[in-house]
Amino acid sequence: MTKLHIEPIFDVAQIAHVEVLSDKPKETIKFFTDMLGMQVIEQLGNQTYLRAYEDNYKYSLIVTEADEPGLGHVAWRTTSPQALERRVKALEASGNGIGWSTDQHGHGPAYQFTTPDGHLMEVLWEVDYFDCPVENRSKLLSRSQKRPLQGVPVRRLDHLNLMSSNPAADANFLIENLGFKLREQIVDDGYVLGAWISVSNLVHELAIMQEPTGQKGKLHHVCYWYGVPQNLYDAADILKDHGYFIEIPPNKHGISQAFCMYAYEPSGNRVELFGDAGYLILDPDFQPITWEMKDVPGNGDTWIGAVFPDSFWNYGTPVTAPVALKAVAE
Amino acid sequence: MTKLHIEPIFDVAQIAHVEVLSDKPKETIKFFTDMLGMQVIEQLGNQTYLRAYEDNYKYSLIVTEADEPGLGHVAWRTTSPQALERRVKALEASGNGIGWSTDQHGHGPAYQFTTPDGHLMEVLWEVDYFDCPVENRSKLLSRSQKRPLQGVPVRRLDHLNLMSSNPAADANFLIENLGFKLREQIVDDGYVLGAWISVSNLVHELAIMQEPTGQKGKLHHVCYWYGVPQNLYDAADILKDHGYFIEIPPNKHGISQAFCMYAYEPSGNRVELFGDAGYLILDPDFQPITWEMKDVPGNGDTWIGAVFPDSFWNYGTPVTAPVALKAVAE
Amino acid sequence: MTKLHIEPIFDVAQIAHVEVLSDKPKETIKFFTDMLGMQVIEQLGNQTYLRAYEDNYKYSLIVTEADEPGLGHVAWRTTSPQALERRVKALEASGNGIGWSTDQHGHGPAYQFTTPDGHLMEVLWEVDYFDCPVENRSKLLSRSQKRPLQGVPVRRLDHLNLMSSNPAADANFLIENLGFKLREQIVDDGYVLGAWISVSNLVHELAIMQEPTGQKGKLHHVCYWYGVPQNLYDAADILKDHGYFIEIPPNKHGISQAFCMYAYEPSGNRVELFGDAGYLILDPDFQPITWEMKDVPGNGDTWIGAVFPDSFWNYGTPVTAPVALKAVAE
Amino acid sequence: MTKLHIEPIFDVAQIAHVEVLSDKPKETIKFFTDMLGMQVIEQLGNQTYLRAYEDNYKYSLIVTEADEPGLGHVAWRTTSPQALERRVKALEASGNGIGWSTDQHGHGPAYQFTTPDGHLMEVLWEVDYFDCPVENRSKLLSRSQKRPLQGVPVRRLDHLNLMSSNPAADANFLIENLGFKLREQIVDDGYVLGAWISVSNLVHELAIMQEPTGQKGKLHHVCYWYGVPQNLYDAADILKDHGYFIEIPPNKHGISQAFCMYAYEPSGNRVELFGDAGYLILDPDFQPITWEMKDVPGNGDTWIGAVFPDSFWNYGTPVTAPVALKAVAE
Repeated sequence: MTKLHIEPIFDVAQIAHVEVLSDKPKETIKFFTDMLGMQVIEQLGNQTYLRAYEDNYKYSLIVTEADEPGLGHVAWRTTSPQALERRVKALEASGNGIGWSTDQHGHGPAYQFTTPDGHLMEVLWEVDYFDCPVENRSKLLSRSQKRPLQGVPVRRLDHLNLMSSNPAADANFLIENLGFKLREQIVDDGYVLGAWISVSNLVHELAIMQEPTGQKGKLHHVCYWYGVPQNLYDAADILKDHGYFIEIPPNKHGISQAFCMYAYEPSGNRVELFGDAGYLILDPDFQPITWEMKDVPGNGDTWIGAVFPDSFWNYGTPVTAPVALKAVAE
Repeated sequence: MTKLHIEPIFDVAQIAHVEVLSDKPKETIKFFTDMLGMQVIEQLGNQTYLRAYEDNYKYSLIVTEADEPGLGHVAWRTTSPQALERRVKALEASGNGIGWSTDQHGHGPAYQFTTPDGHLMEVLWEVDYFDCPVENRSKLLSRSQKRPLQGVPVRRLDHLNLMSSNPAADANFLIENLGFKLREQIVDDGYVLGAWISVSNLVHELAIMQEPTGQKGKLHHVCYWYGVPQNLYDAADILKDHGYFIEIPPNKHGISQAFCMYAYEPSGNRVELFGDAGYLILDPDFQPITWEMKDVPGNGDTWIGAVFPDSFWNYGTPVTAPVALKAVAE
Repeated sequence: MTKLHIEPIFDVAQIAHVEVLSDKPKETIKFFTDMLGMQVIEQLGNQTYLRAYEDNYKYSLIVTEADEPGLGHVAWRTTSPQALERRVKALEASGNGIGWSTDQHGHGPAYQFTTPDGHLMEVLWEVDYFDCPVENRSKLLSRSQKRPLQGVPVRRLDHLNLMSSNPAADANFLIENLGFKLREQIVDDGYVLGAWISVSNLVHELAIMQEPTGQKGKLHHVCYWYGVPQNLYDAADILKDHGYFIEIPPNKHGISQAFCMYAYEPSGNRVELFGDAGYLILDPDFQPITWEMKDVPGNGDTWIGAVFPDSFWNYGTPVTAPVALKAVAE
Repeated sequence: MTKLHIEPIFDVAQIAHVEVLSDKPKETIKFFTDMLGMQVIEQLGNQTYLRAYEDNYKYSLIVTEADEPGLGHVAWRTTSPQALERRVKALEASGNGIGWSTDQHGHGPAYQFTTPDGHLMEVLWEVDYFDCPVENRSKLLSRSQKRPLQGVPVRRLDHLNLMSSNPAADANFLIENLGFKLREQIVDDGYVLGAWISVSNLVHELAIMQEPTGQKGKLHHVCYWYGVPQNLYDAADILKDHGYFIEIPPNKHGISQAFCMYAYEPSGNRVELFGDAGYLILDPDFQPITWEMKDVPGNGDTWIGAVFPDSFWNYGTPVTAPVALKAVAE
């Protein structure tokens, strides 16, 4: 109407589930169940399937026993079966496609691919929904089950953060092939050190941050959501009292404006908890926000606090480099 | 891929602004500025333009002097100029189109239409963004300006709630012509008493509730958002202490799960404040939730409290019927 | 120095424990343990001893099996053994003394007495402290044990509220004999309908409210404390989801300014939960606040909300009169 | 009754007011009024008197223009005129007494003295109460005036923290002469590095921490109270957005369990804000808690977060030593 305007792609809807690797699966599962109130839905071979009480689907997290911690894979759900077909075509054309995986537990056919940095991902449409036993159904009809009485229970999977040897390359790959939108980024002398991208009104379902040693395929963190800032204090309180490592206490991010905190589960994977998810991007013509790296400490990492520790920028799983890590689950 | 699946429409992005009518414009504006920390951007004739500090656009609220309170109009922003063209075609075909309005302050051409119940609406693409004076810019780059020091400042416009003589007719009209999706509804013996519809991940940008006397075109409330539940207590505290009428104190809705409260601004329009917006609908195949009216009091209206007062179901603006209203700005 | 000033009595320090009666002790205990995270310390005969995780003493609550719900007794701890001797002398002289009880579990000799309305009370000095097993000790040294992972755990006993046929008579008896101070009161045409009295900086360890039918010796509620307003929402959420009756959802009292909520445990005793305890009285010459009953609804009961339901003013345990009670643990 | 027990002294009730020195009084006052919602009550010569909206007395803070920031004096109010006489006798006998000051604004005769470290203090009984103009009175009768609409308004003065060349000497002086009780302390190889002492149920009205260079008479911080943890985020948000220095963002202390944050007002004095005051000490036989310094970082300073910065341990006013201070009101 007024100028040439390329219409956005609306083919990917959300993050559907994340698989994390653990060399201490029992302790890892205990962290998610005893502290964060998640529920084990199924145990199949070396894989345990878990869900938060307001997750819609059968599960949102897979813990897979492995030699070292890290990312297994992440699954994105499309907005329709037709959208899935379109995205698979684009992925096939990208040269990064792997092919269809048809025998996974809890969902239908998923097309697998890797990011340029090598993280394993998949897109899918068909998913199994959580079928709540009658006695555990809530009168709050949008809630998948009654609120658990264990720990400080998280409500749903929120997002994933990956480390990459080249964040811009990965972000652009997902923007072009899956329709992600760039929301915020950190640049240093023109080089992209971090990118926050989303397919929804959230600021991000995926963040990609620079891995400082150039190591590929690493996980920065997976994040679950509470919706209420105070619950971060409750969660921090029990994590501290019960011997888990809190890397960053409750705080407010500049980037995303989310109320956040970071802890490490026992195998070393970083877990973020969101009090609230920050601002929503409802403006359809939202222009990406660019932070100069020099302005990030004390504004972008934390809006109201001391700058984040070096480990936040350096540590990911698997731990492949001599990182100055203060302590993990000391 | 698996079954015949009609792809959703992604043409409308968000609520852009709301115009409310007031027979006490000075007092109404004082309520929004002194209590809710909003800023007057411009005064043109009998219209005052206001914004919240995290609103992106030049304004989100117009207060227009009128003989009685009520809704002026609501504007929806599309996801692209092409999307606007498509929606205008649909609206023209619907028989409810009015035509283009091209001389409004703060935005480009808007296509106007009415709902079956007679509420004036418009769709538009071009909007003026807020241009923050340099000295008031925040280092928090996603924030349109520094957080105000006045009152308990709201962050952004959230949604609108209208009363209708036939909620289903209005909801269906917007679902068919603008691509809204039905999220939650209240039914009584098959008749729809209320519908919560959205174009985004929010549970609603628009709710439509039954006007019990069959009166048409009424406003139930306009809602602004804080993001933090506790701020509702702060807002309630100053509203109470400074003599404004609180209809419903801070509470958690069952429908939408939002932390909410309701007050009346001095001309009588109901204003809702959101602590947090409740759950987000990220599932692209989300099935609408249906509440039987008998289950709503004590579960759907309020999840954790006493049932809502009759005024919540009966009172809207303009006040056309002999409503048992306890007090307005007593 | 300036005028004749009678020095205050500092002989009673705090509420030490409360005994409640229950005709459904298993369900009552389940309420306090599963929902409120309290711990059963001991079971002796028909009595179960429980504590909250920041209670200092061996227990703060006794649940005693009985034919109907109500108050067993309440114990006050003095500020010294000498203070106990002084208070016993005063009680003996009052004519309401009963005598020493020397065989109770968890504390030393207690001198028992009744209020004019017949509530059983005792004063004591020697108490058993909670001896935390080493593995459950917290690094937070002022915390008696690690924060529990069950339910939304309360931190400590806060206060007691009794119904009386004559609140002023009971309040004055305790002011004169134990050194309580009158903090706030409700009067109607000169008659005292409620009195909030304390021996500490809290606004009350004890409130006494009018029993409308003249019934004697009834319990209005016992209250536990969280310290954080948000925890009331978490508590309300699990109580609602798990089928308990919430009489009044989270709110802010005018009287005391506390963030409060009220639920009924399964045998029918009302339980209050405090988000925060409101204002502290540090002023040594604090003048009692007097509310006219006509100003209480909407200001004194609740500062920011709808007036409290009739049950708040009428219902107590045991339920001796035909009270219009909506539902108890429906 | 059971053993020889020395009865406690109940002669001092609370902290009445604090005088801070400022070399930028206009900016200092702007900080307390614009950001923290305090009110200027009077300006006399180089002194400005301010109060928070739930302070009972005419003022709780005096800002005095001076060459450098620091403590002017602190005033303690006794529990009665007789108690004042007793404390004055003890102070006279201590050798640290100065004498009666009878011409101060807003209160009656005050007996002045210094701590061993040289901090100026006074004890008094007679005080002027705040006389609220009728139009600003609140229907919430325990609130001295309506809640202000400016900034994020603090409710009342909470406590003072001083630096000393010998914390134990100062603490013992106040324990012996004024009846303070030791609540928590930090020791290192038997030497007391910090002491938290109180006369009320609060964990402290006064903390005394080691000045690392042996400098005498310094101020660590003065603290105001909100009562609600979330308000710390609101306060931090406006302080950050409006250019003030936040030394430590909202956090939970181990010592005292208070929700705290620290900022510097423009002349450099540290100001603490309390979300809630932590646990109350109601136990009359409470045994002081002793922290080994090695256990303090990460447990005692902050219960749930990163250890406090060096400036917390080193920086006080006046700034007399070459302290590695990151920034003050940068």
